[in-house]
Amino acid sequence: MHNFVFHNPTKILFGQGTLEAIGPETRIWGKRILLVYGRSSLRRNGLYDQILASLRTAGLEVAEHGGVRANPLLSHARQGIREARARQAEVIVAAGGGSVIDTAKAIAAGVPVEHDVWKFFTGKKSLKTALPVITVLTLAASGSEMNSGMVLTNDATREKFGFGHRLLHPKTSILDPQATYTVPPDHTVFGAVDAISHLLEFYLTAADPDIPVQDRMMEGLVENSMTACRRCLRDPRDYSGRANLMWTATLALNGLTAAGLGRVGFPMHLIEHSLSALYDIPHGAGMAVILLGWLRAHRTALAHRIAGLGRRLFRLTESDPLLAADQTIARFADWLADVKAPLTLADLGIAAAEIPHIADNTRGLARIWRLAEYSPERVASILLHCLGSDGQQTTMNRSNTSHQGAPGGQCGEESDISP
Amino acid sequence: MHNFVFHNPTKILFGQGTLEAIGPETRIWGKRILLVYGRSSLRRNGLYDQILASLRTAGLEVAEHGGVRANPLLSHARQGIREARARQAEVIVAAGGGSVIDTAKAIAAGVPVEHDVWKFFTGKKSLKTALPVITVLTLAASGSEMNSGMVLTNDATREKFGFGHRLLHPKTSILDPQATYTVPPDHTVFGAVDAISHLLEFYLTAADPDIPVQDRMMEGLVENSMTACRRCLRDPRDYSGRANLMWTATLALNGLTAAGLGRVGFPMHLIEHSLSALYDIPHGAGMAVILLGWLRAHRTALAHRIAGLGRRLFRLTESDPLLAADQTIARFADWLADVKAPLTLADLGIAAAEIPHIADNTRGLARIWRLAEYSPERVASILLHCLGSDGQQTTMNRSNTSHQGAPGGQCGEESDISP
Repeated sequence: MHNFVFHNPTKILFGQGTLEAIGPETRIWGKRILLVYGRSSLRRNGLYDQILASLRTAGLEVAEHGGVRANPLLSHARQGIREARARQAEVIVAAGGGSVIDTAKAIAAGVPVEHDVWKFFTGKKSLKTALPVITVLTLAASGSEMNSGMVLTNDATREKFGFGHRLLHPKTSILDPQATYTVPPDHTVFGAVDAISHLLEFYLTAADPDIPVQDRMMEGLVENSMTACRRCLRDPRDYSGRANLMWTATLALNGLTAAGLGRVGFPMHLIEHSLSALYDIPHGAGMAVILLGWLRAHRTALAHRIAGLGRRLFRLTESDPLLAADQTIARFADWLADVKAPLTLADLGIAAAEIPHIADNTRGLARIWRLAEYSPERVASILLHCLGSDGQQTTMNRSNTSHQGAPGGQCGEESDISP
Repeated sequence: MHNFVFHNPTKILFGQGTLEAIGPETRIWGKRILLVYGRSSLRRNGLYDQILASLRTAGLEVAEHGGVRANPLLSHARQGIREARARQAEVIVAAGGGSVIDTAKAIAAGVPVEHDVWKFFTGKKSLKTALPVITVLTLAASGSEMNSGMVLTNDATREKFGFGHRLLHPKTSILDPQATYTVPPDHTVFGAVDAISHLLEFYLTAADPDIPVQDRMMEGLVENSMTACRRCLRDPRDYSGRANLMWTATLALNGLTAAGLGRVGFPMHLIEHSLSALYDIPHGAGMAVILLGWLRAHRTALAHRIAGLGRRLFRLTESDPLLAADQTIARFADWLADVKAPLTLADLGIAAAEIPHIADNTRGLARIWRLAEYSPERVASILLHCLGSDGQQTTMNRSNTSHQGAPGGQCGEESDISP
């Protein structure tokens, strides 16, 4: 186990009826607040009214900055910073998913400084202070509600970069699973895939292989992401399913799973950030495709590790590491197909001819994240595995589960067949 | 999943060489410190000199309160409170295991108030403020380094009570696995058993059975306690074994495993507290015996839950719940015997005739912990299962592992035999 610092001071209020605590929890930190939210769902499902009522009952002055979209934009965060300054906001309250929370964090970081907030993302400035952030989570996915990270897309340069600092841990995050009842099936799946991708980035790129504490935790969380997602698709109002998916996604990226692993690189996210920066696809949709392609590209180099995962997760009995690794990848592909996640770049509407363009876009973030080993050439070679035409195309094990709005998978793998 | 609040602000510095951070980490909180430690091991293994050097280099004024013993005494904590006041200590630094850390917490809680510190334990006073506590952990066991709890024994009344409050979270805890290299085999085992007992209390008394997130985490930590303990017995200087045992024990009781379970009762600890209050045995030794007895006493009532645990942990394939539960209990008994933990009250030097006396001693804590369902009669009936004579005595599966200092087991169960 590598040395690590673990320090996560975010207070989590989890469960039914916790939403009403948003007023009192915010009041601890200030009186004038900026409420950040998305486009329409918060008003549609009634959460907006509940949150505003609690904030006003607590005697808070509420300014608003709505309209955050998926793959949140730097330009919109900059507007929020201006709004927060104009209203002399003391606290930023985020009500939404990862995009909303990340925008709120960018505003919290940007308000106290004279320079542009993007300089934190490019490493040109370091963070010294930030306004307090409080969150109400409405989507189980990013883990931003209990971590110090944020991701924004620079709409001028088409760069999607991430930045993290301990001052960006939300002070309090309110996690009411009922607030996710109205998340549509496709975004429920994208959220589960996002959590799985965080876990597998850590699991498969850990510098130290002797980490059974973290391994068991990550395997359990991957399993729960898959099973809880299925429950939520079967019944979107299954409280326990929503609760398990929500807490799983939070724990997947709150620092615990990474503690002790040594340097972890986030190479899958490196590539997906370019996909969603260039084509504005949902992050989780992109991650489903990159995850499968990345696993296939590393089936030999990481055969033992992938096989070990499959033996734990899927109780595989195959003793040959390469065969077991291929079976593991096939099981993930089956699950992704079953929940109707996209499986190939074509499913995302991205042509093979785009690969050089995507690979080139990863340069900037690879430099900032110090992933020198991920040259555009290597990224392109991984993206070739996302075409679903590398000899692994077989019949799919599709279930009868059916839901609207998710891109349909067009390719998959059959268990027990190695290419 | 039940509603919960999770808020654990303790900063963990984990790994080799982290000990030297004790000075700078303490300096954040004040200049005059009281260093609390145990009896001899800290000086013997050189840690005392390293800690003192770091504290002095950081320019701190160090007063000392050594001599904490296992099952730490209220009278000794009271002396520490007087010492801390006399030296106007601003920070309490604990260097030791759970007993030392709990004593430090009691001093931190007791210094600012005029009343006696025991009133917190009996629920007669509520905590409003406490001095900051910093810890250097030297024993993987109690989890006190990352939680808000403390346990003391009132030497006048022979009551061993626990108390917890969010203000008692250590500010920083330094976890260097090398600091546990010199822990002897018996106490290594007792520490692992302590961690397992925390996990199984939660696992088996959770009010909500639909908690797969927590279940997978707890199963993983139980497995790691058992495997890491064996590694440490084979080679006390196996860094990875010590690291895994240390981080496992911390995670077992830092609030994460209990979050979402609903009310958990700690009935096994209720009974063990009386054992170690009356007979001054190591807590982990008592827990080994109580754990086995409690499992046997609940083999029917909790058959499904115990069987589920065994299927995950030991890959049992038995489909009948009662048979699978008995196999699970037998596997725990085998492991305890293998690591030479005590298995019966007799192994602890406690006669069967003492049972009424022990059961009667549980009254006070049962009242404070609101475990009304644990009457002395019920406690006595559980203790009867700790005699090892309830028809389950069979040949033991003892390994050749041999170490000094642990009470030897005299009874066990054979796998796959149900009584």
